[in-house]
Order: sequence, then structure tokens, then C-alpha cells
Amino acid sequence: MILYGKQVAEKLSEEIIDEVKTLKDKGIEPKLAIVRVGRNEGDLSYERGAVKRAERLGIKVEVFELEEGIKTEDLIECIEKINNDNLIHGLLLFRPLPKHIDENRVKNYINANKDVDCINPINVAKIMEGDKTGFAPCTPAAVLEILKHYSIDLRGKNVVVVGRSMVVGKPLSMLLLSEDATVTICHSKTQNLKEITKKADILIVAIGCAKYINKEYVSDSTVVIDVGINVDNVGNLCGDVDFEDVKDLVSDITPVPGGVGAVTNTVLFKNLIKACKFQME
Amino acid sequence: MILYGKQVAEKLSEEIIDEVKTLKDKGIEPKLAIVRVGRNEGDLSYERGAVKRAERLGIKVEVFELEEGIKTEDLIECIEKINNDNLIHGLLLFRPLPKHIDENRVKNYINANKDVDCINPINVAKIMEGDKTGFAPCTPAAVLEILKHYSIDLRGKNVVVVGRSMVVGKPLSMLLLSEDATVTICHSKTQNLKEITKKADILIVAIGCAKYINKEYVSDSTVVIDVGINVDNVGNLCGDVDFEDVKDLVSDITPVPGGVGAVTNTVLFKNLIKACKFQME
Repeated sequence: MILYGKQVAEKLSEEIIDEVKTLKDKGIEPKLAIVRVGRNEGDLSYERGAVKRAERLGIKVEVFELEEGIKTEDLIECIEKINNDNLIHGLLLFRPLPKHIDENRVKNYINANKDVDCINPINVAKIMEGDKTGFAPCTPAAVLEILKHYSIDLRGKNVVVVGRSMVVGKPLSMLLLSEDATVTICHSKTQNLKEITKKADILIVAIGCAKYINKEYVSDSTVVIDVGINVDNVGNLCGDVDFEDVKDLVSDITPVPGGVGAVTNTVLFKNLIKACKFQME
Repeated sequence: MILYGKQVAEKLSEEIIDEVKTLKDKGIEPKLAIVRVGRNEGDLSYERGAVKRAERLGIKVEVFELEEGIKTEDLIECIEKINNDNLIHGLLLFRPLPKHIDENRVKNYINANKDVDCINPINVAKIMEGDKTGFAPCTPAAVLEILKHYSIDLRGKNVVVVGRSMVVGKPLSMLLLSEDATVTICHSKTQNLKEITKKADILIVAIGCAKYINKEYVSDSTVVIDVGINVDNVGNLCGDVDFEDVKDLVSDITPVPGGVGAVTNTVLFKNLIKACKFQME
């Protein structure tokens, strides 16, 4: 079975549209601030998708485009302005930031209640603690939404996560633990990777390496979730999994494009609704 | 081989004594504040061990004993006093706190540079990020010190952690990842636990359940690290591992008592020295 992201995003969008209506009835106009430093193509592409999705959901977006050369102090000033603006409920800051900016300092300034992509250490710590009063980062949260949508149970299951980044692998592993999965975290130094992934009930790949996982890494009962977004050698978008090589051999698989990536920005707005509610309290 | 903690603590203590001398030559008298709310027996026992260890190391300790019924505000006031005291370099707060205290609020008030047991979310997030500028919590750090002392390599090894607490399992897993281990985190909902633990190169158990792990869970190549401290049914201290049942079958094992627990408070003072250095910067 192909686990398409579109259906998941549609279902979530319906729920969000209802929530937006309820909020508007109470006089609240949900609004997201996107803070972008410079004009990175990946950031711009994500931004376009988010703006488009927001329109459909009835959510306002304000983009704060800052110069590539901006000083740490001035970026912090922009963040504090957003923190203090009662009409803005969430803040998405594109990272990595240019190298001259002290990202570790900046992170602490994002109001934890507006931190819809889990940048502030307060929210990172909450992910580790399994404390659901924080915000889960959007990509790991999208993976969980897909599994939930397709009724793929996690409790007690052997879930193998390949990749240990702070954007996906590590926070995702913590979220999976909160769902009672047994979690194995693999990475570039893992020995016998194939042996480990073959035994996974659910295999989640986030290594940023085009078509790395082929049929040698899976079994016929594996559910494969492909978080990678790469360009292959003929210029097409592809995942970390060689979709054509494994799709007929595994139990279920997400496509790329059209899998996890299709859900991520919807999760962003689900987090924004949560942020609106925090700010009503 | 029995992996005794005492030798590890001795070696670390020698290093710390040297560091203390160097600091004192620069006019710095390393000092730890212990904040204890109420008179929990476990806290008192840990405190006695720490005070004794500190004496040997030439480190000062000041205990702030607060009433069981103290208000959150008053506890925070005590913490802020310690934060602002330049003659105190580290703060250990015993947890769990009494239920009427808002622990989640309190955590944020501990100065991250004095947070020698990794309570502030800033340091928790650093553990997850593999950022070594923070403080690792003492028990997980003690496990790593033991493995390092006995030259047990972690890189690429299959390490199974049983237990997913915020005190041991989760932060330890993140520290192990930073050492390039492949990490599997198991817990009470894990299916086929024996199959998983038998395949571990290194098995670390932190579940708080007396003698739970017996010979059915290990193989002859397993290195067993027992983090548990329990009392068995005849009143003796014992670990989460049935030491007598497995000791002749495995490659290496830590005893209880005399294993991980014998290293923990020395790691606390290693962290204190790190804190002194932060405050010199």
C-alpha cells in the first residue's frame, strides 16, 4: 500500500479549518510570522507552500524578510517584536541561519508559546520529556500524523530510525518512545545496518542521501516512511529510499514527493492553532 | 570481568583534586550548593555521600534545607540567591519535588551555567543536540565514565538501553548516540525484550526493578551495565540485573552496590569543576 501524504494533509486541513472558524468566532485571527534571513531556495520553496496552504486554511501569514548580513542583535530585535505582537500567534524561523549569526543565542529568544517549529530549548526538552504541552517539530510530527492516519500502531513495535539529526532523527525517536514504540536509532557509524533495518516493523529513513535504502534493507512486513527529499542524477525529486526497487516488496511505503513532505506544512498550522489556544489562556 | 566503580571514581577523583588545586591557585574555591526540600531518605543518603566525597576532593558544599511545605515562589527565591552568589559555582536540586511545587517552573530558574545535574531545559536540549558545552546528568555520565575507564568502545556498537526515564534512559541514549553507538531504547511495552537484549554488545539496564534481567536476557559477549539500585526480598541492595545468575555468563558486568552508583557523585564534582571554568570565562 502506498501511504500518500495528500489524504493526511486533507484530513488535517479540514480539522484546522473548523478550528480557525471557532477561533474567528471568538475574535481571534490566527496569524503566523515567517522569519527568513536571506533568500535560500529551499526556504523560499517551503515558504511558498506554507503561504498557499495558509490561504486555504483562512490563516494569515506575515513574512519578515531580513538581509543575509543581518546582525544577531537585529534578528533578536525582530523576534522580540513578534513575541510582543498580540496579533501574531506563531513564529517560524528558517534554519540553518548564516554562520555569522549566533543561532544558539537566537533560539532562546523565541517565545516558547509561539515556537511552532520547536526551536526554543524549552520545547526541545519537552519533546524529550514526552511533555505534550510543547510543540513537536513539523517533520517528525508529520511522520506521526501519517502513521496515525493509516492506523499503523506503534505500541511495542520495533521501529528503526535511520538518521540522528536534530531536525528529524532525534526528536522523532523521542516522540516514538512517547507512543510506546521500541526505538532503534541508526546512523552513518552503524554496523550491519541491513540486518537491523530488515527486522524493523516500521523503518523511518532521514539521512538526506538519494535512494540509499534499496530492497536489501527491507522485508515483506516492513512499513517504510521516507523523510528524505533529494534530487536524483536525472534531476527528479526522490527520497532516501529507492521507491521503485522496494515498493512491491514491502508492506507499505510513503512516496517522494507526495509523502511526508506533503504533510509537513499542514502540521505547522496545526501547531499554530495550538499556539493560538495557549495565548487565549 | 567485574567492572567496579570504585577504580573509576578514584581515577576521576585524582583528576578532580588536580583541577581543584589549579583553581585554588587562581583564587577560586569550588563550591556546590545542594538544595533539598524536606527530608527524603534517598536524598539524605545521596547528600551524605556527596558531602563526604567533597571533603576528600577539597570542595565546599553548602546544604540549603527547605521545609517540605515551601511555596514555589520561595524555592525560586532560594535558587536565585544561589544564582547570584559568585562564591557558589554549582547547584544540585533534589527531585522529584513535593507535588504542590511547580517543578516545570522551577527548572527554568536554575542558572544554566551552574546546573551541574542537567535540570534546566537549556542543558536538556544540549544533551539531545550532542552539544558538550552543557552538563550531562550525573547517572548517565557515570555510565559513560565506566565504559571509558574500562576501554569499552561504543562506536558502531549495538547498545540496548532498557528504561526510558528522563533521569537515565533518554539522556543516556542521546549521550550514547553522540559517541556513535547504535542505540535501541526498550521499556515496559517492548515486545520480545529477551531477543533484543541478547543481541546487544552492551546492555544498560535502568528500570528500577530488582533482579529483572536474568541469564535468559544475555549472551556470552554482552557487557552489562546495571544502573538499578533496589532492595531485594531479604533486605539487601541489588540491581536491576540478577548478578549471581548472569555474572559467569557475560563478558563484563557492573556490580550493585559498587558499580554505577559508586561513580555518580564523583561525576557531580567533575561537572562542578566544569561550572567553575564557565564562571571564569
